[in-house]
Amino acid sequence: MSGAGAEAVIPLAAVVGILYALWQWFVVSRVKVSGYYQSLDTGNGYHGGPVFEMDRTEEDAGEGTPDERIIMAKCAEIQHAISVGAKSFLFTQYKYLSIFMTFFAIVIFLFLGSVNSFSTKEQPCTYTQNQNCKSALANAFFTTIAFLLGAFTSVFSGYLGMKVATYANARTTLEAQKGIAPAFKIAYRSGAVMGFLLASSGLLVLYISINLFKVYYGDDWEGLFESITGYGLGGSSVALFGRVGGGIYTKAADVGADLVGKVENNIPEDDPRNPAVIADNVGDNVGDIAGMGSDLFGSYAESTCAALYVASISSFGINHNLSAVLYPLLISAMGIIVCLFTTLFATDLLKIKAIPDISSVLKRQLLISTVLMTAGIAVVTFAALPKNFTIFNFTNDKHVKNWHLFLCVSIGLWAGLVIGYTTEFYTSNAYSPVRDVADSCRTGAATNVIFGLALGYKSTIIPSFAMAASIYTSFRLASIYGVAMAALGMLSTVATGLSIDAYGPISDNAGGIAEMAGMTHEVRRRTDALDAAGNTTAAIGKGFAIGSAALVSLALFGAYVSRSGIGSIDILDPRVFAGLMVGSMLPYWFSAMTMKSVGTAALKMVEEVRRQFNNIPGLMEGRTKPDYASCVRISTNASLQKMVPAGFLVMVSPLVAGTFFGVEALAGLLAGALVSGVQVAISASNSGGAWDNAKKYIEAGASDHAKSLGPKGSDAHKAAVISDTVGDPLKDTSGPSINILIKLMAVESLVFAPFFAEHGGLVFK
Amino acid sequence: MSGAGAEAVIPLAAVVGILYALWQWFVVSRVKVSGYYQSLDTGNGYHGGPVFEMDRTEEDAGEGTPDERIIMAKCAEIQHAISVGAKSFLFTQYKYLSIFMTFFAIVIFLFLGSVNSFSTKEQPCTYTQNQNCKSALANAFFTTIAFLLGAFTSVFSGYLGMKVATYANARTTLEAQKGIAPAFKIAYRSGAVMGFLLASSGLLVLYISINLFKVYYGDDWEGLFESITGYGLGGSSVALFGRVGGGIYTKAADVGADLVGKVENNIPEDDPRNPAVIADNVGDNVGDIAGMGSDLFGSYAESTCAALYVASISSFGINHNLSAVLYPLLISAMGIIVCLFTTLFATDLLKIKAIPDISSVLKRQLLISTVLMTAGIAVVTFAALPKNFTIFNFTNDKHVKNWHLFLCVSIGLWAGLVIGYTTEFYTSNAYSPVRDVADSCRTGAATNVIFGLALGYKSTIIPSFAMAASIYTSFRLASIYGVAMAALGMLSTVATGLSIDAYGPISDNAGGIAEMAGMTHEVRRRTDALDAAGNTTAAIGKGFAIGSAALVSLALFGAYVSRSGIGSIDILDPRVFAGLMVGSMLPYWFSAMTMKSVGTAALKMVEEVRRQFNNIPGLMEGRTKPDYASCVRISTNASLQKMVPAGFLVMVSPLVAGTFFGVEALAGLLAGALVSGVQVAISASNSGGAWDNAKKYIEAGASDHAKSLGPKGSDAHKAAVISDTVGDPLKDTSGPSINILIKLMAVESLVFAPFFAEHGGLVFK
Repeated sequence: MSGAGAEAVIPLAAVVGILYALWQWFVVSRVKVSGYYQSLDTGNGYHGGPVFEMDRTEEDAGEGTPDERIIMAKCAEIQHAISVGAKSFLFTQYKYLSIFMTFFAIVIFLFLGSVNSFSTKEQPCTYTQNQNCKSALANAFFTTIAFLLGAFTSVFSGYLGMKVATYANARTTLEAQKGIAPAFKIAYRSGAVMGFLLASSGLLVLYISINLFKVYYGDDWEGLFESITGYGLGGSSVALFGRVGGGIYTKAADVGADLVGKVENNIPEDDPRNPAVIADNVGDNVGDIAGMGSDLFGSYAESTCAALYVASISSFGINHNLSAVLYPLLISAMGIIVCLFTTLFATDLLKIKAIPDISSVLKRQLLISTVLMTAGIAVVTFAALPKNFTIFNFTNDKHVKNWHLFLCVSIGLWAGLVIGYTTEFYTSNAYSPVRDVADSCRTGAATNVIFGLALGYKSTIIPSFAMAASIYTSFRLASIYGVAMAALGMLSTVATGLSIDAYGPISDNAGGIAEMAGMTHEVRRRTDALDAAGNTTAAIGKGFAIGSAALVSLALFGAYVSRSGIGSIDILDPRVFAGLMVGSMLPYWFSAMTMKSVGTAALKMVEEVRRQFNNIPGLMEGRTKPDYASCVRISTNASLQKMVPAGFLVMVSPLVAGTFFGVEALAGLLAGALVSGVQVAISASNSGGAWDNAKKYIEAGASDHAKSLGPKGSDAHKAAVISDTVGDPLKDTSGPSINILIKLMAVESLVFAPFFAEHGGLVFK
Repeated sequence: MSGAGAEAVIPLAAVVGILYALWQWFVVSRVKVSGYYQSLDTGNGYHGGPVFEMDRTEEDAGEGTPDERIIMAKCAEIQHAISVGAKSFLFTQYKYLSIFMTFFAIVIFLFLGSVNSFSTKEQPCTYTQNQNCKSALANAFFTTIAFLLGAFTSVFSGYLGMKVATYANARTTLEAQKGIAPAFKIAYRSGAVMGFLLASSGLLVLYISINLFKVYYGDDWEGLFESITGYGLGGSSVALFGRVGGGIYTKAADVGADLVGKVENNIPEDDPRNPAVIADNVGDNVGDIAGMGSDLFGSYAESTCAALYVASISSFGINHNLSAVLYPLLISAMGIIVCLFTTLFATDLLKIKAIPDISSVLKRQLLISTVLMTAGIAVVTFAALPKNFTIFNFTNDKHVKNWHLFLCVSIGLWAGLVIGYTTEFYTSNAYSPVRDVADSCRTGAATNVIFGLALGYKSTIIPSFAMAASIYTSFRLASIYGVAMAALGMLSTVATGLSIDAYGPISDNAGGIAEMAGMTHEVRRRTDALDAAGNTTAAIGKGFAIGSAALVSLALFGAYVSRSGIGSIDILDPRVFAGLMVGSMLPYWFSAMTMKSVGTAALKMVEEVRRQFNNIPGLMEGRTKPDYASCVRISTNASLQKMVPAGFLVMVSPLVAGTFFGVEALAGLLAGALVSGVQVAISASNSGGAWDNAKKYIEAGASDHAKSLGPKGSDAHKAAVISDTVGDPLKDTSGPSINILIKLMAVESLVFAPFFAEHGGLVFK
């Protein structure tokens, strides 16, 4: 493929992806959700007055029977409330973030600018000999710009995801009146809107930035791709705060709502009498949707940056072979097209007839995209890459053949599938592990917690081997570039992964809306089925996120090591080992902060919910409305306050380690955080997922075994609810945030590497 | 100091330590525990018939009032039952172990013998040039002998500890009738018996073995100290099975007893109506006493072996400077003397007047021993070591001064104190962390579990920094020898550490006996106070154990690297990184096995206890006796069955990694297991300790805050009991076993290093 061909294919695929997303959005939008507010006053006292304003037009109200119109109006009201809550949280969060981003942008500029004392003179290139490259000051400037661009794209991704999800949730509920298949399709199409918009816009922004930067950098590809790494840092910084803030928000509300509602007052989940119910549903959108969106976008941006950076200092870059350098972007472009075909299987080709079909269709999405993508990788690899080339390999060059890279990308892709399916095995209640956990409820919450923790620990085994195998193979074949490409392979089907992920919270919200709008038991049964499948896919998504984060971090780590000019990282260097020890502790420190934040915020929420139940007369009887807004406020304030110290820890640790203890200590820190964090994240996510589905297993009572444990309200079920609550912060706050911790620390180290190499290690000097 | 001086001082100190222990035993034995069985038949129906036979002599029964004689006889009976249960468990365990040890001894002999094809010819030495060393076959033979010796000493240590503890528990109860001070003294003296016997006999056996091996090895110190490393492997192998088996035993019984007794039937802890109560008390002796004894003995043996091995290939060994080579043993000898003086403060110099004095006296033991030992280290260092010498430092030699080693040993010692005090802060209910955990019980078990997990995670911060700092400093000053000596510094006060540790379960048992014998509330209050202090010291002991294990493992790791002939371990070698990833997963795999074992065994216990409550008429009313023996049987069988796969995982992993994937992969595996395992172990131990003491805090109700949460049976207290049960396997089974996992894998790798270097890495060949 010629350079011009590559230049044309990438934006084309991105635009196709965006158009496809818009088309899906259009399909979703044909489900009408609106109605007169007046029609809500149905006399049961609950809908006694307007809480949230909503847009409504005369003609929207004209369809359906009066009953249908009332339900539709209720749905519209609830959707609106959720959307307003989510929007207000995100806007406040972005306000905080903009201050932080400005501050950090200045730090980046000053630190990197100081590498060569803010001189504007060109400097000799590091890898391309006898040539001059742009000044360190220029790199500092462009890195800062890239950082801001990445941050902005990440904000945009999160916000967009939230918009789509809050647009789709009530529509899914309404479609569930018609049957399981239409509801599934709407939820999945909405997920696809988010998946394709994110994957495509991420690719497009990166592509445009590279081309714009090239106007200034010209032939200095070293500097060009060095500054592009700022894009990854920006993306991940926003993702960190999004995940942590959103995670605390959603779980404070969820835990608070469950503890008082389900455990103390024995009212169902999502009951409109529960004051925390709107906050809980808002949380799904800001935590699981916006947070997850930013997170996977960050992984994608970082692995691309790592691969581009290594390529730029390899023979591709030195020989200025454009289509070869752009290989990572071509893989992503191919991924968009492959995912587009894959989505057709879910929305058009495969039929959903009964509830069990849902999860099999979702699981098949993963398999189909993986199989198709393997072929896609082959096409891209043999078209874009020369037969033989050399890859930068620390102190020496490595000779690589193009089929080696085919293997690297493919092994990442398939390792993702293995991790995904393992996660499913450990968190779906179709298999024995979760059933054992459910069974342990017989002897109470304590044994259930013990079994769930053990399950989480056990679930790290296969993913660790899968990651070790793909790291070993890709590293062996194409050094650190191979690892970056394996990570990108795992993420190449990100559009499908995100679609499936977003599908989960949308269905969860749909169920909440059905309950709150007082829809029939049958509708609720359908939304519950959608939600249960979504729970498992959420766990699978987390598996992908952590697996790709591990590979991405290692790739970034390798890029960091080469950029900071150290040839090897000897574990038996005392600085490295001390760093390893402290680094392996960081995920624990971070988890302690996030878990405690959820705990504290949940306590506040519990007090507020209890207060309302005790002080608002007629609330339990459904005659008066709770004060939803005060619960939304508590979650918002708690999460924004608490995300700051946790985020600070992650952002500051590499700076402190690098500046005071030097590049070797920082290398140890990164490796320690990586290997320990992966285990903490996997076990936390899977324990939480298993508890959640063990509870759902007892509630559904679909087998004799499940019936013997239930029904709702039995001692075993109560025990299951306690463990589910324990799992909430593990699986939705601390677990997934650790992905970002390890990636962010690595990409930050990469960006600041020139500074650390020049001025770092003050203590030992 | 001359070589002869060193040769004389070491056995002298060991003999003094043994005599001191025997004297303490004599003091303890003066408290009489015995009585006529007949006197037990007091007509209340509970003591309706003999369950366990006991030795009794006519004259013993003559003292005291009839009431006192009855109580004494009851105590004697219970003590006897516990002792019989413990003995029978240990004997069965040792039967299993002897099979395993024989098998593993053969493996060692065959693997090491095959290094040079079982040739009996001498071979050129590796480090002392132009000289011949003994054959690989001889080394294989002597390593096997050392392995068996270490295993035997470890068995002896565990058994002895159990004997002392079951001898002391009823005596402590009886002394508690007189007051808090005499009871404390008896418990502490008994702890000292175990502490001093273990520390001294460990030193003595090692000393004698070295001297006997020298008869054969003569001037070949390389081979001599290479084969002595087998001693550490033997010690730790037994410790592994002891810890895992004992840990499963004790927690299956404890969890089972609590779930049915406390949670379901609302009867107090240690109530004689609970069928699992004897098994629970037996568990304390086989888990906390025998397991902990073997564990710390293993650490001690391994750090000494690592230091000796590195010394033997440094200038000490090459110049045949005996007193310098024996420096590690001299430090331990000095430790025994220092601890002897320290014990006087607890037993004679400081007075216990009220309950709060107990924990302050115990805590002061640590401080006093640390201060005195610092002086002791100075004396030994400047007497035994030459002013300047060189230490083997992988590819080159390191020039070291004697005061450098003073710093290395001291920093280890003081880091131990820091870790101990941090552990105390996080697990004692005198401070805010545990009180916060207790407070979170207001909103139920879920928040309590969340807060406790967060506390455990948080408690890893300071220990990680302390370990990192001591590793960095000691490594920097004297390479891997410095690390080994820092580990030995931390363990130099092991006699005091073990005394304090053994004190805990003895007091716990004493409380159990008081309850079962139906002694007054006042006696029970005293034994509870002893027990509460013991809980915190147990956590401190675990802190020491894990801290020293980390240092020991690193030292062994360094020795392994040098012995397997690789100069450096580059994290960016794909084999190393893949190993790192899998290694960091191993503590999770292992924890999953042990936690699940406890869970499963506890479920069986729960069923049996429920069965007895339901089927034995009059049991709840105290008219009939439960069938204690069947519960003892369940715990015994479950723990013996389940310890095998967990132990197998630990023993086989290094063999598989080394044989199939080579020395680099194994190095990564060890480093990963080390840094990740340390965090898992600390957080598990401290979460468990905090939950336990949060529960005790609510039960004691000693402050307004505590009273607002209690009393026993309140909702908050029930939540605390649930979390305490969750913490049981964390703090007493999986957490402490991980110490041994990381040490054992390292020492095993060291022993098998010549084989791996010669024949390893089959997959990559």
